[in-house]
Parts: sequence; C-alpha cells; structure tokens
Amino acid sequence: MSDLEIRPATVDDLPHIVAMLADDPLGAQRESPDDLTPYTAAYERLAQDPNQHVVVAVRGTAVVGTLQLTIIPGLSRRGSTRSIIEGVRIHAEERGSGLGTRLIEWAIEESRRQNCQLLQLTSDATRTDAHRFYERLGFEASHVGFKLSL
Amino acid sequence: MSDLEIRPATVDDLPHIVAMLADDPLGAQRESPDDLTPYTAAYERLAQDPNQHVVVAVRGTAVVGTLQLTIIPGLSRRGSTRSIIEGVRIHAEERGSGLGTRLIEWAIEESRRQNCQLLQLTSDATRTDAHRFYERLGFEASHVGFKLSL
Repeated sequence: MSDLEIRPATVDDLPHIVAMLADDPLGAQRESPDDLTPYTAAYERLAQDPNQHVVVAVRGTAVVGTLQLTIIPGLSRRGSTRSIIEGVRIHAEERGSGLGTRLIEWAIEESRRQNCQLLQLTSDATRTDAHRFYERLGFEASHVGFKLSL
Repeated sequence: MSDLEIRPATVDDLPHIVAMLADDPLGAQRESPDDLTPYTAAYERLAQDPNQHVVVAVRGTAVVGTLQLTIIPGLSRRGSTRSIIEGVRIHAEERGSGLGTRLIEWAIEESRRQNCQLLQLTSDATRTDAHRFYERLGFEASHVGFKLSL
C-alpha cells in the first residue's frame, strides 16, 4: 500500500468525509451524503476556530480516514487543557489495517504539542470492538458518557 | 434563601471556583487552591474564546456553584453543533437544594440558544449519585467515556 498522510481536511474532502460518516451502523441513520449543504456550513465554522482540527488520512489520492480533535481549556485539574476526539471514521477497505491506531496516535501527539494534559472521547456503548481498541491504546474506560438530544 | 443568579464567571470569582473544585472527593487530589496562578492563566484563555462559557451561580454575594459549557461545531450528524459540560461543582452548603438542576437547566437553555443539537458530559464511574441526577434530567447513559493522561 502507498504511504499514508494525515493532514487538515479541506472543503474538497467533505464528500469523502461524509461518505465515511454515513457508512457506519449508527451513522447510516444520521447522515445525508446526498446533501452536503449542512456539512459545508459546519466546515466553514470549524475552519475559523483555532481550537478545532478536522483531519483526514490520505493514502495515495484516496481519503481513507478522518477524525475531529477539539482543544478545550479549563479551570479544573489546576487549569488543565484537555482535548476531545469526535467523529472517528475509517474507510471500509482500510479497517483492520492499523489506520485507526495511526489516527489516534496523531491525536495524542497533536494534543501533547498543544500542551493538553488529558485526551478524552466517548464511544457508544454498542461499539464494543472500539472499546477494546481504545483500551489497547492506553485509554481508561473510567467514565459514563451522558447525552441529551436538544 | 435569597435569589439565585447564574452569570459569567469573572476573575474575582476564581478563588471561590477553585475552592469548590477542590472540595470534592476527586478534586481534593487534583487542585491547588493555595496557588491560583495556573487557574488565572486558564481563565484568561477561556475568557478570550467565544465558545467557552464558565458560569457561576451566586446567592446573595456568595458563589455557590459553577460549570463550564463548551460549544463544539462538528461535521457528524449533518453538521451538528454539540455542547459539553465540564467542571460542575455545587458548594457543600447548597447540595440537595436544587441548585444542580438550575445549573444544568441553564446549560440546556444556553445550548439551545446556540443552536446545539446535542448536549453531552461524562461523569466519573464512581459518582453514582451524579448519574442518577443526570438521568432524572433526561440524559441517557448511552456512551462509555475514555480518558488518557498525557
């Protein structure tokens, strides 16, 4: 396989990102890959926020993975900055290739570079394979994640 | 009891916020109420970020509660914006008074005002009372929260 590059997402990557978001047991019900309008609006907002880092993994010319890393300053833990990972997706043809590990390792390195003391994420309780994956990478399943739809 | 006001935290509120962060079974080991330097630096960063909302609840002249609400745009769920609650603390003398409910209701209202579609938080697995509290407010414990210290 050709070399992998992890780089900031551009607006031209959006169709590929949205296709990956939708190609997922949970995402299939939530996404609209045939209408990019809401994604383009969200991308513009993300691109203007220095604490937001949406990246893609590219192999050759193919977009094969994505995640969003958010930097969050805070008062607790002696004014610690934390980072949060959302929207991790790996292209179906790349699953099991180690790409997920590469993406999370990128997030760990970038979080350290930004002086974060803590990296966190939540994973749907049904995604048990993902839970084992994060535990193998050193994450601790120490918290319960609560969500409220508004 | 006198009326309650929920308002943005000022730098003068920091000693009271840090005292509440430290007066907690988990926070006692993590905070340094005798040295406000790291909190002041974090406050300056928070105050400059339009997506960060650190608020205090004030009764009369006493700071009796705090939380941090972060607004996070994103691509997933058709470009949904979500909000995250961190650093919820209620003064020891106010626990059981309904103040926690008032603070979370403030966060729900503010998140709606900012067009968030989802409000989320994680709670340490040991805080079982807090879990019942969030479920009573309509949150669903649908996720596992993973953390990695950096």
